[in-house]
Amino acid sequence: MKELIGGVCAAQGFRAAGIRCGIKALSKKRDLALIYSEKPCAAAAMFTANRVKAASVLVSREYATRGQIRAVIANSGNANACTGEPGLASARRMAELAARKLNIPTEQVAVASTGVIGVPLPITVIEGGIDALVESLRSDAEGHDAALEAIMTTDTRKKEAALELEIMGAPVRLGGMVKGAGMIHPNMATMLCFITTDVLISGECLDKALRRAVNRSFNRVTIDGDTSTNDMVLIMANGEAGNPPIIAEGPDFQNFAAALEALCVKLARDMARDGEGAAKLVTVIVQGASDENTAAVFAKSVASSNLVKTACFGADANWGRVLCALGYAGIDFDPNAVDVGFASRAGTIPVCQKGASVPFSEDAAKRILSEEEIAIHITLGTGPGEATVWGCDLTYDYIKINGDYRS
Amino acid sequence: MKELIGGVCAAQGFRAAGIRCGIKALSKKRDLALIYSEKPCAAAAMFTANRVKAASVLVSREYATRGQIRAVIANSGNANACTGEPGLASARRMAELAARKLNIPTEQVAVASTGVIGVPLPITVIEGGIDALVESLRSDAEGHDAALEAIMTTDTRKKEAALELEIMGAPVRLGGMVKGAGMIHPNMATMLCFITTDVLISGECLDKALRRAVNRSFNRVTIDGDTSTNDMVLIMANGEAGNPPIIAEGPDFQNFAAALEALCVKLARDMARDGEGAAKLVTVIVQGASDENTAAVFAKSVASSNLVKTACFGADANWGRVLCALGYAGIDFDPNAVDVGFASRAGTIPVCQKGASVPFSEDAAKRILSEEEIAIHITLGTGPGEATVWGCDLTYDYIKINGDYRS
Repeated sequence: MKELIGGVCAAQGFRAAGIRCGIKALSKKRDLALIYSEKPCAAAAMFTANRVKAASVLVSREYATRGQIRAVIANSGNANACTGEPGLASARRMAELAARKLNIPTEQVAVASTGVIGVPLPITVIEGGIDALVESLRSDAEGHDAALEAIMTTDTRKKEAALELEIMGAPVRLGGMVKGAGMIHPNMATMLCFITTDVLISGECLDKALRRAVNRSFNRVTIDGDTSTNDMVLIMANGEAGNPPIIAEGPDFQNFAAALEALCVKLARDMARDGEGAAKLVTVIVQGASDENTAAVFAKSVASSNLVKTACFGADANWGRVLCALGYAGIDFDPNAVDVGFASRAGTIPVCQKGASVPFSEDAAKRILSEEEIAIHITLGTGPGEATVWGCDLTYDYIKINGDYRS
Repeated sequence: MKELIGGVCAAQGFRAAGIRCGIKALSKKRDLALIYSEKPCAAAAMFTANRVKAASVLVSREYATRGQIRAVIANSGNANACTGEPGLASARRMAELAARKLNIPTEQVAVASTGVIGVPLPITVIEGGIDALVESLRSDAEGHDAALEAIMTTDTRKKEAALELEIMGAPVRLGGMVKGAGMIHPNMATMLCFITTDVLISGECLDKALRRAVNRSFNRVTIDGDTSTNDMVLIMANGEAGNPPIIAEGPDFQNFAAALEALCVKLARDMARDGEGAAKLVTVIVQGASDENTAAVFAKSVASSNLVKTACFGADANWGRVLCALGYAGIDFDPNAVDVGFASRAGTIPVCQKGASVPFSEDAAKRILSEEEIAIHITLGTGPGEATVWGCDLTYDYIKINGDYRS
């Protein structure tokens, strides 16, 4: 497995584009993106668990059930959520406009939106931009870079990745881009992730691999505990790699699934690192739980705690808040068996053993927690379950960004 | 029912004290409190739902099962949590010291602590202060004021209340004090609440009245979603009012229970208003749910959302975040039936009807949301369930206070 450049254009047969069509009326930023496979695809997708779902989610979910998505059109600047029947019509229209110009069936185009909730989507503005969008499809950096820019909102950096692995001698490529900054919580809130691959795989296997990867990556990221109306992870596989088709869970499937998981973990980490206002990536690793899911629940409880997050911001080795957050995770455990340590590239320091304080140097702890990437290691007991969750600190900038997002 | 001054000393036969004994080594603030009834009491108590419980909680819970608590000794500056066996011994010792000086059984003294977690309680410092503490017990303002000061941590204002009602011609008094600023969430996190009353009531009825009142007050407050290791609500009833004893759920019980609920709601609102770094009290009222508990779950989800809280801070009428928070409350509902409005003493403004935007003046909304006490009114449908939850905004000061609490 090796890393590539090229994002969603790294896999053969995919092109991308991003333009400014004017949805973000007061901004010069790009706001409309398209990713397209020249050949038909197997596809799989996952959507928000929020009961309030954006029109784009409702429409894309319907189209995705056919498993043949080969293009996605996405806008930023407007979430097209809580917009009623007109919003649904606009989402369908958005897919239709792209499909017509691409000369493919509407049901093969997914739709995604991100931005403010409750404002009608300016569909005529999108209509005016559709020709330019399709005509600017490119398979090089100008394609995937522009598409990525067009789905960013409060993101401060571009988050994309690509990998190559070999399956029975054939080079197989995967690439992905992600947008997501605030409102991110397990179950994938206000994140959009588009993944392309040239692997030849059945829709069923693709779906299985995606669910496993998302469960161990995007569903283990928490920024502020809010879960959005609009999130979506989509993968399209066009088979151009020419590998022997993956149609069951053998070694080839495992290799591909592992690569997909690695790609998603990379994007998920980047997303946490770029959480709204975040100064630090905070990785919480729980070991010794009864099973993996239990470990993940405890890790999420710690990573989601506003008090833990502010302590990370302040580089304060306040492990009592870690124990406290474990305590309200809703699952029984023995507080007197818990070990806690902090780590970063500046070192590792144990701060709590068997549920009680161990002497440690506050200066050393401060130095460790002052790094940009820090980790909280928790051992709950002797069980086999472990899980990693990615979060970030809670900072003045989070308040600033969200105190008046709309203006 | 009329309001009184006097806090926990308003009821007959109660005295209180608060001194500086030196637990907060670097501060001149009071840090040790005592509340005491001259006569034996019926008592009831509720404790944190956190799996990690402070030593004081474990000891007080044990003593409270006998239903005869007539004194409480409480310290600030140290939570005596995650302190192992020595911590438990210190908590027992704290009760014993007070009991010996008061000449009552140790099991009639509850213990409470609040402050930093994981640091051994300096029990010898408390021992050194116990005589001065007991000797300064007073039934006037110097008593309850000093006691209240001694349990405050990041609280910015004194939170106490007292009421009088009549039961069969006898004046009955209740008074309470509360401490609680950050880490407050349904299930009563890092809050201490001590209530005194001279009503004559059975322990069973007192317990029932307390549970009902707490469920509708302190368990409907959320500051930052964190639930602490130390919280406790205690009520002591010494029977000095001379009313016919309340031993069943008749009209006298209902009157007393209503007064207790009113007292707790007053203290809970004050606690939310004084949330760490809070600039505003945010009241969330959900109506039209299937039942009261369901309404409370939706209201808590909205009041706990960091995105809603920052919008309140910014006086931004971002109702999409309200719908979004309803959507991840974990209970099904019809987004297309939801109405949302904002209100304050500056006016009332509907912003969402049937799940979609209604035109409104942003200026008027800004004016309404710029008040210090604002309300979010949500109608989910046509069910009979309604509930009110109190929270606060999320501000720069919350980050400042919690970014380095220990130093």
